[in-house]
Amino acid sequence: MAYQEFTIEGRNAVIEAFRAGRTIDKLYVLDGCQDGPVMTIKREAKKQDTPVKYVTKERLDQMSETGKHQGVIAMAAAYEYAEVEDILRAAEEKGEPPFVFLLDNIEDPHNLGAIIRTANLAGAHGVIIPKNRAVGLTATVARTSAGALNYTPVAKVTNLAKTIEELKKKGMWFVCADMDGTLMYQLDLKGPIGLVIGSEGEGVGRLVKEKCDMAASIPMKGNIDSLNASVAAGVLAYEIVRQRGE
Amino acid sequence: MAYQEFTIEGRNAVIEAFRAGRTIDKLYVLDGCQDGPVMTIKREAKKQDTPVKYVTKERLDQMSETGKHQGVIAMAAAYEYAEVEDILRAAEEKGEPPFVFLLDNIEDPHNLGAIIRTANLAGAHGVIIPKNRAVGLTATVARTSAGALNYTPVAKVTNLAKTIEELKKKGMWFVCADMDGTLMYQLDLKGPIGLVIGSEGEGVGRLVKEKCDMAASIPMKGNIDSLNASVAAGVLAYEIVRQRGE
Repeated sequence: MAYQEFTIEGRNAVIEAFRAGRTIDKLYVLDGCQDGPVMTIKREAKKQDTPVKYVTKERLDQMSETGKHQGVIAMAAAYEYAEVEDILRAAEEKGEPPFVFLLDNIEDPHNLGAIIRTANLAGAHGVIIPKNRAVGLTATVARTSAGALNYTPVAKVTNLAKTIEELKKKGMWFVCADMDGTLMYQLDLKGPIGLVIGSEGEGVGRLVKEKCDMAASIPMKGNIDSLNASVAAGVLAYEIVRQRGE
Repeated sequence: MAYQEFTIEGRNAVIEAFRAGRTIDKLYVLDGCQDGPVMTIKREAKKQDTPVKYVTKERLDQMSETGKHQGVIAMAAAYEYAEVEDILRAAEEKGEPPFVFLLDNIEDPHNLGAIIRTANLAGAHGVIIPKNRAVGLTATVARTSAGALNYTPVAKVTNLAKTIEELKKKGMWFVCADMDGTLMYQLDLKGPIGLVIGSEGEGVGRLVKEKCDMAASIPMKGNIDSLNASVAAGVLAYEIVRQRGE
């Protein structure tokens, strides 16, 4: 997994990238642009479930590195994504019950990087992120992961709630971080487990939370609202590590 | 504790700030500058144990907000520091054994802010940082602390090892984060305790480490070297919380 961040600009370049099977994290299209090539690009984006954002010319000009975007800029993944199956296989190969992080809309690349770093050191077999709204595997994420992106597979899924449902059928349990949940020490967090972490502002989304088997809270003894998302992920992950090691 | 970050520029302004008893985190002086007023400023800095940095004119010009630094810029603390005594008193008032974070040369303001945030929520009574080399309470620290700086006292000391020695005489125990230490679950972390966290690059310094009663390690099950400093602080702090709650 070599690492570089880049934008692909211009109609032909973007169409080619899609057809070559490159993972495009996000497609930016000039708002109102409806001509043939742009429609082709949008069809390709739809096929591959790539989120499309409609933006002003000023925004595109600002993002552009070449100055020749022709109304379309694609953000290509700096890393190749894994499949959910790869993560389960990694657990199987180690002879361990799966331990997976699921991140519901973590938008800050520093937090995403730090959480992937934590996932690696806590012995998780992979990280699952949703396609929409969340940040992708940018160079900043790679840097803050301190190399963990080279070892810990990250899969991107269309619908996190649906993925949880599918993994539950395979025997996994899911616990979400939730300030109103049961104190984490009182939960049984052993066995094949998915740890669901939400964004700092909003926490885990309702639809995802409803799919979880348990809601875990970290004891809060202070005056302020909540821990930094990556610190909360670390504390919960290591409670899982502690229980698994018992 | 109102919050604002600012630089004090120019000879008279800096002398006045020192004489008014303002906490100056760092003093920047034009390298080679030896005249009377500058010598007076340096004497004041020495009296108050303020670290002095000698820098080029270009650097000062870059830092200057007014363009009139006259060869001296002082970085004033955005928050007022507490005394170590204030932290012990806070514990006493709550009727709890003291729980204090000591940060050995955390240089990244985002990490310092996140750690103060964690200290607040883990129920620690305060944070102690050393005067030299470490970052001070800047606006970035205040922001990433998510308001915790308004509640959790932070004290600045000249010599962390000496402070540990003094606090040991008052019955406190000290545990430092150390990858080669005993697994944290196997240590008794109850009672009056100081948690010592080092910088990401270097860990806890040798002199400080030698003063500690215990060295605690977090289980590392991955491929990379270490957790982010604020995540490591969170995991260790919550192991203390868990043991205290038993």
